[in-house]
Amino acid sequence: MRGLFSNDMSDSGLFIERLAIIGVGLIGGSLARALRQANTVGEVVGSGRNAEHLQRAQTLGVIDRWDTDVAAAVAGADVVVLAAPVSAMEELFRAIGPALKTGVIVTDVGSTKRSVLEAARVAYGHIPGNFVAGHPIAGTERTGVDASFSQLFRQRRVILTPTAETLPAAIATVKALWQTAGAQVSEMDADRHDEILAATSHLPHVLAFALVDHLAALDDRHEIFAFAAGGFRDFTRIASSSPEMWCDIACANREALTTALDGYLQDLVLLRDAIANNDSAAILAVFRRAKQARDRLIDLAGPAVNPA
Amino acid sequence: MRGLFSNDMSDSGLFIERLAIIGVGLIGGSLARALRQANTVGEVVGSGRNAEHLQRAQTLGVIDRWDTDVAAAVAGADVVVLAAPVSAMEELFRAIGPALKTGVIVTDVGSTKRSVLEAARVAYGHIPGNFVAGHPIAGTERTGVDASFSQLFRQRRVILTPTAETLPAAIATVKALWQTAGAQVSEMDADRHDEILAATSHLPHVLAFALVDHLAALDDRHEIFAFAAGGFRDFTRIASSSPEMWCDIACANREALTTALDGYLQDLVLLRDAIANNDSAAILAVFRRAKQARDRLIDLAGPAVNPA
Repeated sequence: MRGLFSNDMSDSGLFIERLAIIGVGLIGGSLARALRQANTVGEVVGSGRNAEHLQRAQTLGVIDRWDTDVAAAVAGADVVVLAAPVSAMEELFRAIGPALKTGVIVTDVGSTKRSVLEAARVAYGHIPGNFVAGHPIAGTERTGVDASFSQLFRQRRVILTPTAETLPAAIATVKALWQTAGAQVSEMDADRHDEILAATSHLPHVLAFALVDHLAALDDRHEIFAFAAGGFRDFTRIASSSPEMWCDIACANREALTTALDGYLQDLVLLRDAIANNDSAAILAVFRRAKQARDRLIDLAGPAVNPA
Repeated sequence: MRGLFSNDMSDSGLFIERLAIIGVGLIGGSLARALRQANTVGEVVGSGRNAEHLQRAQTLGVIDRWDTDVAAAVAGADVVVLAAPVSAMEELFRAIGPALKTGVIVTDVGSTKRSVLEAARVAYGHIPGNFVAGHPIAGTERTGVDASFSQLFRQRRVILTPTAETLPAAIATVKALWQTAGAQVSEMDADRHDEILAATSHLPHVLAFALVDHLAALDDRHEIFAFAAGGFRDFTRIASSSPEMWCDIACANREALTTALDGYLQDLVLLRDAIANNDSAAILAVFRRAKQARDRLIDLAGPAVNPA
């Protein structure tokens, strides 16, 4: 095989002779498409629980072949990407361990990072130096390989959360892999990642799911939803996300999420009291600070490239 | 003048010789544009507090002339549309009262309806039969006449909340006016309107403003917002709305909004406890019901025509 790095295949010099993707859905499928499009990958092997989905991924040209036996799928792979639910990680680590070849680099795409590192620690007794925990902050409310597209990660952020033991060469490879897919890669502590994502992603999802469920439980739900405007649609779009995936994430990051929820609830109750008391000065102060911060955020980030 | 109805000018037969619009912003400006485009209006007179904004509206061709003196602006008008903040309604009712011509029809576009009817009652001692309270459920987070466009109300809902005293002919005219602009018009009780809008519009706005303000107050706000994905942007888009307008709305509808907030807070605390207790069955139940309801809503409403 060629080395992981060779400067004739892409700007980053990355070339992966054999890539194994465990979980060929929106994220795993989009990554495979992006790496193929950049000619940075030889063979792509898929794995997962559902043979029909894997066959579909092969038919779409996202993967070259597949095996529902995850150990068989990762055999001989140079890079393994775990794109399965965070709740499945410990079992996956155990299953692939004996089948991995020497020098393999393993990464994941889970939305919570402490739980994934903990899963590795439990499965192997330590966090292997060739495992680089990662999280692409990209996605849509749709799922499955049919929703995947090669541009999903363009101009999106990817956070890697290496530990003190992670091998620099492994970090460099995973970083190059995401850069090849068009992403901007940052590194930080897993705790920090989990706090930031609890605030900006997990908390909004919980609020949106809770709101739609609350309104749906009202007797007059049909009339209520009939008069919902575009603001409500945007606000609740994330409540159309996968319940199973987000339940996994909420549990896996329950500590940071509970802290974020408690902080928010405290502020929300104050605002509720200001409204009940007709305290327009207090209400206006909150609304003004929020608009200012939201407008800054948009200035900061520029127009959205995709609906992730 | 021609009568309010003549069957040669539009499908609905509506023709308004002179229309006065008080508050020529996104809503008032878009309504003027829509009625002009349908050739259902003769002269459009604008009024408001800011001469510069009114001159801009005239330059854009949205209005024919303007007067910052609201009494002068409504003199001789056949239809008057009050598109000012709900907090300004009582003062406006007082100001226009003596200047209105016999047979005039007055309507408004306020987001809360009990408060507007109450403002009329306080100003006039009763709710005049020629006043039809209304609310077009349309808008964007942008404001001002420059954001106005003739298609804003196409396929959007407009709710009218007439009282027992409202004249049927006045209701018919206001209904025809909104239908001409492309909207679907419903009638209901003002209490019912305020409850529905508290749930689907005012509550989400409060939640979004509170979330962005909460996150902005955290020390690490810059890092937090830098890692916010598209889901967060959609969820918080409504927090870029006008703080002043939404503060007005929150206070004007504080009773229904407080009730909606309390119901939501109760459910949210239950969900928070389920997350803290790692109760995945309870979490999953909420998330699944929410996704089902959200997906039904989209089926029900079809694709959004504009970002209102």
